[in-house]
Amino acid sequence: MIGGVREYFDKDYRKLKYILDTIEKIYASYGYRPLETSVFEDLNVLLKKGGEEIREQIFRFDRIGLRFDHTVPLIRFAEEHKELPRPIKRYSIGKVYRNEDPQRMRYIEFIQADIDVVGSSSIYSTLEILEIAELVLSSLGLSAQIEVNDRRFLDSVVADLDDDQKSFLFRTVDKIGRFGERWVREQIERKGIGMKYLDILLRSDLETVKDYSKEAYNTLIRIGRKFNPTLVRGLDYYTGEIFEISIAGINVSVGGGGRYSMFSEKHNVGISLGVSRLYDLIDYKDQINSVFIAWIDEFEYADSIAKELRKRGLAVEINTEDRSLRKQLEYASKYYGKCIIVGRKEKEEQSVVIRDLKKGEQNTISLKELLENYSKYFD
Amino acid sequence: MIGGVREYFDKDYRKLKYILDTIEKIYASYGYRPLETSVFEDLNVLLKKGGEEIREQIFRFDRIGLRFDHTVPLIRFAEEHKELPRPIKRYSIGKVYRNEDPQRMRYIEFIQADIDVVGSSSIYSTLEILEIAELVLSSLGLSAQIEVNDRRFLDSVVADLDDDQKSFLFRTVDKIGRFGERWVREQIERKGIGMKYLDILLRSDLETVKDYSKEAYNTLIRIGRKFNPTLVRGLDYYTGEIFEISIAGINVSVGGGGRYSMFSEKHNVGISLGVSRLYDLIDYKDQINSVFIAWIDEFEYADSIAKELRKRGLAVEINTEDRSLRKQLEYASKYYGKCIIVGRKEKEEQSVVIRDLKKGEQNTISLKELLENYSKYFD
Repeated sequence: MIGGVREYFDKDYRKLKYILDTIEKIYASYGYRPLETSVFEDLNVLLKKGGEEIREQIFRFDRIGLRFDHTVPLIRFAEEHKELPRPIKRYSIGKVYRNEDPQRMRYIEFIQADIDVVGSSSIYSTLEILEIAELVLSSLGLSAQIEVNDRRFLDSVVADLDDDQKSFLFRTVDKIGRFGERWVREQIERKGIGMKYLDILLRSDLETVKDYSKEAYNTLIRIGRKFNPTLVRGLDYYTGEIFEISIAGINVSVGGGGRYSMFSEKHNVGISLGVSRLYDLIDYKDQINSVFIAWIDEFEYADSIAKELRKRGLAVEINTEDRSLRKQLEYASKYYGKCIIVGRKEKEEQSVVIRDLKKGEQNTISLKELLENYSKYFD
Repeated sequence: MIGGVREYFDKDYRKLKYILDTIEKIYASYGYRPLETSVFEDLNVLLKKGGEEIREQIFRFDRIGLRFDHTVPLIRFAEEHKELPRPIKRYSIGKVYRNEDPQRMRYIEFIQADIDVVGSSSIYSTLEILEIAELVLSSLGLSAQIEVNDRRFLDSVVADLDDDQKSFLFRTVDKIGRFGERWVREQIERKGIGMKYLDILLRSDLETVKDYSKEAYNTLIRIGRKFNPTLVRGLDYYTGEIFEISIAGINVSVGGGGRYSMFSEKHNVGISLGVSRLYDLIDYKDQINSVFIAWIDEFEYADSIAKELRKRGLAVEINTEDRSLRKQLEYASKYYGKCIIVGRKEKEEQSVVIRDLKKGEQNTISLKELLENYSKYFD
């Protein structure tokens, strides 16, 4: 396996799938419609929307590139489908790509789960997607903490800076959580930007916001989550409220989003959850109802039992190798707690041997008993 | 959207997901373990296993490339996990990539669903995966036709040709289904290869196979599916039986596979189903239990109803826009057959209006009646 990617086998895959299924079920239950796009997008479309930083991270071949998020594909899709009534409420769950140095512990492929509302300027959309994010996290056994800020407030605070300074200040302030206030001050000073902007942000509460932007204030009041004046987030396309979703108590970000404008679609709001992040955070108890059937000579009898048990919802692996019973049990004990054994005697009696592979104990029951009460035997 | 890819929105996505879920459920029920790998593989690993034709079709950046099938990632994974007991029975479902000219109506991104057994030289593995393929297709309402041949027979027939001629002959014969016998004869003649090899293949039945390879004969007899002596398939890594899976009656291939050797793993057998192909072939009736809630003034009342209905398993979209009832109904009628309307009067009475958006008829029922018998109102 190359660096910067993950792969999921067996129970790891089931854990991943459990997360994806949980998210998808909740997204769909709110009437959001699924959109599965290609990982490929026109390179020009990607470049037009990526900020400086993203631009260098696009995997490219000729005139196509790999999507670096689900937002650009969504808005491109919305522009291509003018006939769809607005708002378009859609979800997308899948892999996105960033050409980063894997040595820096960054993933070059990771999974994001997004919901967005395209063509909505209403606060209800924002409230709905925040509610959905909280529901997803609580369903996964995590407690969400949502911090909010507003671009209109931030823009107003730095109104007398030029674009370059503004952009630098925001990018730097955005890292205050990771690198601390001292580091931020040093960076800002070195760039020759006055300290007053940072001081305003650090001192601001909701009442301060009112002095800078009435709209931002009204929005933040309605949202009613934790106000964080130094929260900035991907500045290139956000236009109003922005949010950061963390796990309460441990301060790990699992997603974020905000209100944005992109291409011809001006009023949109969305969030993105980092599935690979969630994977590392949740508790998951792997439960799969499965059994192995070992057999000697009597493949057909074993196979008929396998088919009956599969009909009842069990995953049944039957021995397909030409190997001794000892070898079959050796293999089974690597994957299974119990197994079924059949041979000539069992076929004649219409019975099966059930063997506890941990304890090495076994006993014989009738086939009828197995099929009627199979769940009693495999926990 | 760029050429050569597909995207799936709303009911198209649900159709795709229905196929993927059906396949996955069956694969897992036989005890095959899921493996989700990255779309990225080390370029050298890909190049080492791709034949001439595939090699040119790999999307590359520096030292990584996009996987062109699920077999190379599987064997690379198996080599990295020597500790896993053999055989490894695994399934993989996901996108694979071929850098082809989309103008030629080829997809550059498509979905394949594979099952393979790594480290098995038994005929039972082959029988099992063919049974699984047939079960998948019948579960999707399609009738499978499986044609088989054997590499050992083919190799024996052309034993006195050199490698280049052999490879050319096989690649040409493999296209007989698409281009016909006359075309194949022309190609072979032009290359200066004698006609006798083709004639043997065209005349062969199972008894002929016995004269060329006893092992191939015994294998084909045990497999018991339709023998096709001109079936060749991706010759680079197959070593024994090979199969082609088509839909009976319409002669469209939906997958294939065979026994193969790759890198250090010598005895493996597997099949790959083309999901995008299946997508175009199956009948699918989209069924989603969903409803729209329109409201005037009383958002909270509407929202509490939405939450109750979601708990009961319905997908519920609630209006999140600041728009008139007329506009809400206009929107709802694009996506829904019926909708719920609430306002001040309904809140006071604890009732809801149910409107048939097609017929324009509506009537009022109590909230209690809705929550108790909701399925009666939304078909």
